[in-house]
Amino acid sequence: MASSSSLTLSQVIFSPSLPRHGSSSSSSPSLSFSTFSGLKSTPFTSSHRRILPSTTVTKQQFSVRASAAVETLEKTDAAIVEKSVNTIRFLAIDAVEKANSGHPGLPMGCAPMGHILYDEVMKYNPKNPYWFNRDRFVLSAGHGCMLQYALLHLAGYDSVQEDDLKSFRQWGSRIPGHPENFETPGVEVTTGPLGQGIANAVGLAVAEKHLAARFNKPDAEIVDHYTYVILGDGCQMEGISNEVCSLAGHWGLGKLIAFYDDNHISIDGDTEIAFTEDVSARFESLGWHVIWVKNGNTGYDEIRAAIKEAKAVKDKPTMIKVTTTIGFGSPNKANSYSVHGSGLGAKEVEATRNNLGWPYEPFHVPEDVKSHWSRHTPEGAALETEWNAKFAEYEKKYAEEAADLKSIITGELPAGWEKALPTYTPESPADATRNLSQQNLNALAKVLPGFLGGSADLASSNMTLLKMFGDFQKNTPEERNLRFGVREHGMGAICNGIALHSLGLIPYCATFFVFTDYMRGAMRISALSEAGVIYVMTHDSIGLGEDGPTHQPIEHLASFRAMPNILMFRPADGNETAGAYKVAVLKRKTPSILALSRQKLPQLAGTSIEGAAKGGYIVSDNSSGNKPDVILIGTGSELEIAVKAAEELKKEGKTVRVVSFVCWELYDEQSAEYKESVLPSSVTARVSIEAGSTFGWQKFVGDKGKAIGIDGFGASAPADKIYKEFGITAEAVVAAAKQVS
Amino acid sequence: MASSSSLTLSQVIFSPSLPRHGSSSSSSPSLSFSTFSGLKSTPFTSSHRRILPSTTVTKQQFSVRASAAVETLEKTDAAIVEKSVNTIRFLAIDAVEKANSGHPGLPMGCAPMGHILYDEVMKYNPKNPYWFNRDRFVLSAGHGCMLQYALLHLAGYDSVQEDDLKSFRQWGSRIPGHPENFETPGVEVTTGPLGQGIANAVGLAVAEKHLAARFNKPDAEIVDHYTYVILGDGCQMEGISNEVCSLAGHWGLGKLIAFYDDNHISIDGDTEIAFTEDVSARFESLGWHVIWVKNGNTGYDEIRAAIKEAKAVKDKPTMIKVTTTIGFGSPNKANSYSVHGSGLGAKEVEATRNNLGWPYEPFHVPEDVKSHWSRHTPEGAALETEWNAKFAEYEKKYAEEAADLKSIITGELPAGWEKALPTYTPESPADATRNLSQQNLNALAKVLPGFLGGSADLASSNMTLLKMFGDFQKNTPEERNLRFGVREHGMGAICNGIALHSLGLIPYCATFFVFTDYMRGAMRISALSEAGVIYVMTHDSIGLGEDGPTHQPIEHLASFRAMPNILMFRPADGNETAGAYKVAVLKRKTPSILALSRQKLPQLAGTSIEGAAKGGYIVSDNSSGNKPDVILIGTGSELEIAVKAAEELKKEGKTVRVVSFVCWELYDEQSAEYKESVLPSSVTARVSIEAGSTFGWQKFVGDKGKAIGIDGFGASAPADKIYKEFGITAEAVVAAAKQVS
Repeated sequence: MASSSSLTLSQVIFSPSLPRHGSSSSSSPSLSFSTFSGLKSTPFTSSHRRILPSTTVTKQQFSVRASAAVETLEKTDAAIVEKSVNTIRFLAIDAVEKANSGHPGLPMGCAPMGHILYDEVMKYNPKNPYWFNRDRFVLSAGHGCMLQYALLHLAGYDSVQEDDLKSFRQWGSRIPGHPENFETPGVEVTTGPLGQGIANAVGLAVAEKHLAARFNKPDAEIVDHYTYVILGDGCQMEGISNEVCSLAGHWGLGKLIAFYDDNHISIDGDTEIAFTEDVSARFESLGWHVIWVKNGNTGYDEIRAAIKEAKAVKDKPTMIKVTTTIGFGSPNKANSYSVHGSGLGAKEVEATRNNLGWPYEPFHVPEDVKSHWSRHTPEGAALETEWNAKFAEYEKKYAEEAADLKSIITGELPAGWEKALPTYTPESPADATRNLSQQNLNALAKVLPGFLGGSADLASSNMTLLKMFGDFQKNTPEERNLRFGVREHGMGAICNGIALHSLGLIPYCATFFVFTDYMRGAMRISALSEAGVIYVMTHDSIGLGEDGPTHQPIEHLASFRAMPNILMFRPADGNETAGAYKVAVLKRKTPSILALSRQKLPQLAGTSIEGAAKGGYIVSDNSSGNKPDVILIGTGSELEIAVKAAEELKKEGKTVRVVSFVCWELYDEQSAEYKESVLPSSVTARVSIEAGSTFGWQKFVGDKGKAIGIDGFGASAPADKIYKEFGITAEAVVAAAKQVS
Repeated sequence: MASSSSLTLSQVIFSPSLPRHGSSSSSSPSLSFSTFSGLKSTPFTSSHRRILPSTTVTKQQFSVRASAAVETLEKTDAAIVEKSVNTIRFLAIDAVEKANSGHPGLPMGCAPMGHILYDEVMKYNPKNPYWFNRDRFVLSAGHGCMLQYALLHLAGYDSVQEDDLKSFRQWGSRIPGHPENFETPGVEVTTGPLGQGIANAVGLAVAEKHLAARFNKPDAEIVDHYTYVILGDGCQMEGISNEVCSLAGHWGLGKLIAFYDDNHISIDGDTEIAFTEDVSARFESLGWHVIWVKNGNTGYDEIRAAIKEAKAVKDKPTMIKVTTTIGFGSPNKANSYSVHGSGLGAKEVEATRNNLGWPYEPFHVPEDVKSHWSRHTPEGAALETEWNAKFAEYEKKYAEEAADLKSIITGELPAGWEKALPTYTPESPADATRNLSQQNLNALAKVLPGFLGGSADLASSNMTLLKMFGDFQKNTPEERNLRFGVREHGMGAICNGIALHSLGLIPYCATFFVFTDYMRGAMRISALSEAGVIYVMTHDSIGLGEDGPTHQPIEHLASFRAMPNILMFRPADGNETAGAYKVAVLKRKTPSILALSRQKLPQLAGTSIEGAAKGGYIVSDNSSGNKPDVILIGTGSELEIAVKAAEELKKEGKTVRVVSFVCWELYDEQSAEYKESVLPSSVTARVSIEAGSTFGWQKFVGDKGKAIGIDGFGASAPADKIYKEFGITAEAVVAAAKQVS
């Protein structure tokens, strides 16, 4: 066991990213996983969160046998397993009861598979939830989170201690109402909205398969973990899960093992009322290996055998359908929807205690169960130590690969990466920002080892292909172009999984901007779970022309500007596109959306990467003393129109400032002084122009200003014609400027 | 053939709803389908659209044989079929070529199945696209719209004449870049965004099955039509299509027949790169009957036989997988993505003409093809006449049912229906608006024959069950509670199909408000395609408490307020809930969203149905002369907080006005005078409070006002605690009011 003074570089590097509650500072220096080194990491962005009290990690003493094998399917003493499973059930029951809120049914039914996974199968280090090569577990049926909290508690994670269990679903608790990766170290992704978790799991498995293919060597299997997921009937019904499971089959994600909690109950009652398809046959049609465990309640050996079989199938993901009883153990509520979403009630808790022979006080973990689980702390540390040693060897032999992998694991970007970003002058050729975006994507992929992504079957329209790489496919997983097919929602959620696999994996994904409507569920989870996905959204306005109103975004800019912790960029030209990418790459805890034009746009004078990074900035001004006659504000393709209108007004002797508002959220972060320098409060003559909803613009144009935009749906016609007919013109800006000034 | 002077009531009633372009005014009085009677219909809401020139319907003379049978699978003369199919191909080729924009590949590949459907199988009346008992056709692969436009043209629909074909995708054209029901009579629903069409088709088939079960009698099959749909690989990949096809199988929609255009090409190339699942096996697992037509290019008899087989299977929907060649006939571009989304180019058009032996000028329809198709006008009129006579008989025997069915077909609401809406006084018990909503839903279902709906597996949380009805299921389709399962996106799109089936079908659907993120694609299509769906969205804020930020809407109100043609309601109590429902029912061309509370709210003094219908109105005011010291604005659950703050401020001697802003869009429609009476421009001291994003509120509170809200994500804790911690309190309002006044 390495002491802190003899830490190898790799051991330091592969320690946790900064957890939300800063739990690492006081942990024991004798553990190799406990401290974060001075190496830079992306700053933690928590502006949108409440601050919670930091907690102290209990010091632990233990000895480690490096040869300890956590992963075993050998049958443990049956009595202790049963007792452990009931411990899980009652921790869930008790926490929900105390909170008077929550979902006991799933944990009671899934405790056996949960126990086997965390106690017998998965490799992890409870004292370093961020150890890189851990197996990933996702509870896609997130409402059953007490299952996972109970397991993390038993396994020895510091994030879920007895007091935490007692504060379930309360203000300031570390174990909220659904699993949230940013609140509870040990939780990989944020679930609850159904179907997201299985999609995240596909993303985690994609990340593993990709990194393994890129970095493993015949003599060094440095990336090697499984992704396990539990999903329920609700997840199965959601379209997103079919999207991602179709891709998982297509990609042959052999190390993805999904447990389908087949309990026949959803909130509205028996699944017979709305869900009578043959799920197993569907998964077979999607290219999965399917196993049915008929007795998920007590059939421990069946579950163990299924996992063994799943692992033996290397070219397909496996779905293990586990038939369980929701609320197993509750004599009067099991197998009914009443045990799904609320506590059992004191009387039924008592009946369940009697029924399962559970004499203990609430929240009690029997000593023998504690003792049984206690091995995971030393064994987990040993696993990490062992892997660290392996990596040290790897690094000696394969220095270049090791450097890339380090960057991917730590999120530390290679020095000088931003120099790869292209810059433009007004003399550079006019181009669509979707094309300029492709220049940036290709430039970034050259310097960022964890940069990868793709489109939902629109690569040639979104301009997202990385030219130096091939397609990530079943037999070429080392490549970096992902082909998502027409599956926007699944694409976004898969990218969340990739982003949350390792800090330095920077996934981008693309479709037409209007089709963010199909994937908003995943995009909101990016924002909430701090997954720094880059959304490349082309065809950003009526400017796409003939495809018409079904394809023309109107309200989309406003709808994302209103969403917390997501950056909505609408760059006007090459420099602003590069500026948007620079920020997007740096903001690893905040997703970014780039709305990009289909049509050509000129490279404007006055735009810059630095300006774009401020969100809003002055592009041109012929006034002095911070007091122009009028301020014209534009974004994206309409900044050019604002510039043209300014020319006209200047000819008429006006002093005019043109301001680009490429990202409202970044502008909001600037100092009051800076804002006053851009939009002086004394200048109320302001006109904005944007080919989209005017909703929200009043904030910048003020009571006396005017917002030019489109508050109805678009139309099918050539783009120039639509712009003219909808009054998105320099003439309209000039007229409005005269009106307000 | 009835003359206008001898029109029966039923003939008048079952004439078209008002088409977008008002094409009916000049049509021949000798046609029973041409005029809209004086019977009231819901006013046409077109404020968000551009006005296009009305067109003149050509007068036509023909004779009708009432016995003419359009529906026949008999083989027509092979040569004329081939010629007709090539006419369809070249109309598509020529229109795309002239527009220099569009998608010729699908029409070229699907022309054979299109021909057989419109020429041999479907029953319709081209001169009355709104004839109630017509077969419905949906082109789910909407980019291939030239297929449908060519078919409508050949079939004799007035909406697609030669000049229209020549103006494809141009400003003011009646045939836009994707099929839009509101632009082109004969197009049933709006498609283009993939997967929506197949979902709409499921909705149309649900409507047929439901109405047939309710209204057919052993001696009168008055509702009896098929729903046909063509979908492509793109639709198949979208999650929404799996959701709705699972439901279609579950519901046993035997009269839904889907053609899967299996051409192996999507925009990014061969479908092999992202789509290798076994689609047929998947559909079998979903409970569909599956047929494979291996030669969709020239295998006319195979297609005919498949349709015959599909019709014989009455308890399952059928998917006919038709293997085709995209761009069939183009020697150099067929079977490649290059023919998907752009014109062939002059040279390849020429090569295709040579290849298919097509000597004609662009847009030419050979005389024998014209003549062949000309029978559909008289035959269609005869079908309608026959049905009208049948209905007249039905009406005599089953007066009550006939009255209900009439109301459903015409959209004319029963007189006095609005009296059923519940009203409340401040003495009425406090209640959650989700519960008050259920009172409204049940009241409305009693008086509105076309009122039906359900929830995405949250009926008991959304409070959406209609207590006097059972579940719409395979064997009980006459019932009105729809059980959608956890399939939000599919639910919304199915409801669009139901709403667009008949003007008087008023579908509602429900989930948690935050999960509108999953179904926004469908909701935008509701707005665009003028489908008056009612979205019952409960758990509308942090007020839902412990489920936490994944379940707490923040930006959702703003995001819908920015969307065109949709009404975003957030009622504060019983009267406002009833007011929202009143408007929602009346607005048959505009969807409505009701954001409803999980938590109890008091019945406030001053709220009213009439006030709610104005969108924003004064709830209380102790000032005179329209000049209060401060105006407090609230919505939904925060109106109570505004009222409490007002009490406090009044105690301190202030004059205070409390305004409810239950629906911004309705307020925007009010006169300037009314608005000045609610928000006088001289009173700049304004404070708004809403438990959601402040985005957009500046519009009402102005530069000097203050908006209290939540601009980050929520938290998991009891609701009261979250309100307090987030500062959504009367104290905060009082403090802000003092600051601004």
